Amino acid sequence: MANTSVDVKELPACYVFVADVPGLKNSDIKVQIENDSILKISGERKREDGPNVDVKYVRVERAVGKFMRKFNLPANANLEAVSASCQDGLLTVTVPKVPPPEPHKPKTFDVQVATASVGPK
Amino acid sequence: MANTSVDVKELPACYVFVADVPGLKNSDIKVQIENDSILKISGERKREDGPNVDVKYVRVERAVGKFMRKFNLPANANLEAVSASCQDGLLTVTVPKVPPPEPHKPKTFDVQVATASVGPK
Repeated sequence: MANTSVDVKELPACYVFVADVPGLKNSDIKVQIENDSILKISGERKREDGPNVDVKYVRVERAVGKFMRKFNLPANANLEAVSASCQDGLLTVTVPKVPPPEPHKPKTFDVQVATASVGPK
Repeated sequence: MANTSVDVKELPACYVFVADVPGLKNSDIKVQIENDSILKISGERKREDGPNVDVKYVRVERAVGKFMRKFNLPANANLEAVSASCQDGLLTVTVPKVPPPEPHKPKTFDVQVATASVGPK
């Protein structure tokens, strides 16, 4: 299984997941939400050679194979608005936050000044 | 220092070096030949945020910083024709081979049939 390093950062309006996926394109990567609370990133890295039999590997350091990472999402994650994009071998998944409910403002009432008549009519 | 994994492969006509450089572009990477025999790949990985102070890192796994790798090149490497390109977070350096000298073919001579006169003139 290929190792895939991921940074997670929090911004005022969203959470952002950044994964190193060198050599992969959008179509090679799957981003899913499981159980309404888990972000799952998966895919597979392959060698680029294809059926080229004339290649002899002198040194092999890059990891290939399937990879999968899961992250618990916070309660305020807006699962309907998750977006993902891949560029220059970096996958970026953006999970917007649900805006917090408006705080309950104390209610204020105008005090009516009642003009009371004093004494018997 | 950021780790940078490199595969080295040999093809019939060239050597190919493939390095994982997620998030980097052509202009972020330096490819040099030192002492007519050493391939040097160097660069720097940075976080993408810039001066954004509203970012809070919840998890940090991706390595950043300067990186450098050196490789001895074989004697038949054609240093005048090295090329490098970067796409989808993969750097590919191609070092063509100098074609081997033509093997010395055995020389053949036609045997002249001398018409010798036999006996005294």
